[in-house]
Amino acid sequence: TLAFANNKAISRDKPCKHMVLYFHNIMYNGTNQANATSIKIHDSHGALGPFDFGTLVVFNDPMTADHQLLSTPVARAQGFYFYDMKDNYNAWFALTLVFNSTEHKGTMSIMGDDIIALEERDLAVVGGTGDFFLTRGIATLRKNAVQGIEYFSLQMEIKLYECY
Amino acid sequence: TLAFANNKAISRDKPCKHMVLYFHNIMYNGTNQANATSIKIHDSHGALGPFDFGTLVVFNDPMTADHQLLSTPVARAQGFYFYDMKDNYNAWFALTLVFNSTEHKGTMSIMGDDIIALEERDLAVVGGTGDFFLTRGIATLRKNAVQGIEYFSLQMEIKLYECY
Amino acid sequence: TLAFANNKAISRDKPCKHMVLYFHNIMYNGTNQANATSIKIHDSHGALGPFDFGTLVVFNDPMTADHQLLSTPVARAQGFYFYDMKDNYNAWFALTLVFNSTEHKGTMSIMGDDIIALEERDLAVVGGTGDFFLTRGIATLRKNAVQGIEYFSLQMEIKLYECY
Repeated sequence: TLAFANNKAISRDKPCKHMVLYFHNIMYNGTNQANATSIKIHDSHGALGPFDFGTLVVFNDPMTADHQLLSTPVARAQGFYFYDMKDNYNAWFALTLVFNSTEHKGTMSIMGDDIIALEERDLAVVGGTGDFFLTRGIATLRKNAVQGIEYFSLQMEIKLYECY
Repeated sequence: TLAFANNKAISRDKPCKHMVLYFHNIMYNGTNQANATSIKIHDSHGALGPFDFGTLVVFNDPMTADHQLLSTPVARAQGFYFYDMKDNYNAWFALTLVFNSTEHKGTMSIMGDDIIALEERDLAVVGGTGDFFLTRGIATLRKNAVQGIEYFSLQMEIKLYECY
Repeated sequence: TLAFANNKAISRDKPCKHMVLYFHNIMYNGTNQANATSIKIHDSHGALGPFDFGTLVVFNDPMTADHQLLSTPVARAQGFYFYDMKDNYNAWFALTLVFNSTEHKGTMSIMGDDIIALEERDLAVVGGTGDFFLTRGIATLRKNAVQGIEYFSLQMEIKLYECY
């Protein structure tokens, strides 16, 4: 198959692919093994203040097409984040979205900084495989829901600008 | 030096660079310091089931041109992986291949998900330096050998689609 | 807004954007919470020799435009590194530069290997957001200053080759 890149001229308003997904993270709390989708592998215990600077979490979270945790997942988000700020919550993320459905097969890799204090935070989509071969773009995070310290959900709006 | 990108039209069958390498990982077991090439820096001790979800390993592994551990390395693979699935082995990788030979000097950075249950798993090559300046492509992992819990080897087939 | 990529022909000598910044890292030592910008989240305690193979550090470091720690920061460098070599210091980095000034707003994500034994080490700039939307390039590290085990500073010369 021969494909032509669309990256000779790129308009931020005209991604070649656009998706909105919801990311659901349920932290392991010692007793919820069946439901947990993530685990804290380092707790910095407030060494650098109350915002968990240094605390590291590994996750394998369902991604749904609407904002409901219990909707059928359309992808998995696999990766990690750690908090990295002394005076507010701020998380550094690296993750891969894994699609394995009739609609999409392939992966998309993302890295960047989730500045939780902002309403919208942009991460970089830095590569992909399968249906997302060599893709690049932007993944914008917005708050969806938070429940206690164990559950949070983020909207992830993905705009891809290189599609092959 | 002026170079022209080959990425105006990309065919998946026609990478601008193609390599097959073998990655050899010898886990530190407490006594094999001389031979070990990797070290577990977090063990989740089965908190999320028998597949080591959350266990994190840092490595600096030789890459050889054939499948033998003892062949002369042609590169090093430096990075980390962690397991991230409850019901099977699945590893998330980020690594840099470091070449320093007469044939190649430079690095290639890779990230993605190694779905160990599949025969072939594609990771994204997201950038490079030196001879691999600004490169992008796909690194396909296939099983080469496993011996106990201390040694595994993977074939890595690299196809680059942006060569400058 | 419509932008044209400059990546049809790329000359290593002619980046579309060029910056020199200084990265300052002050390690948490148990008592310097107010000044610390980084924290060791795993110490391998010499398991694989004297060069800290496996030791992992999370940081949120000021970036200044000159080599002085106390100059006004122009960006933050947020990410992590770990040592990964048995016979010398060698660090694997993944980080995001976060700019939020009148001059630049946006992020740049970087990954690669800091071969500390070399005078110049190139890392890959693999993506960006905001003013650095979809950027790619090279970040070259050079030693700036080291003071004891708690402070080091690196010069980071950034050359971007895709600017939109």
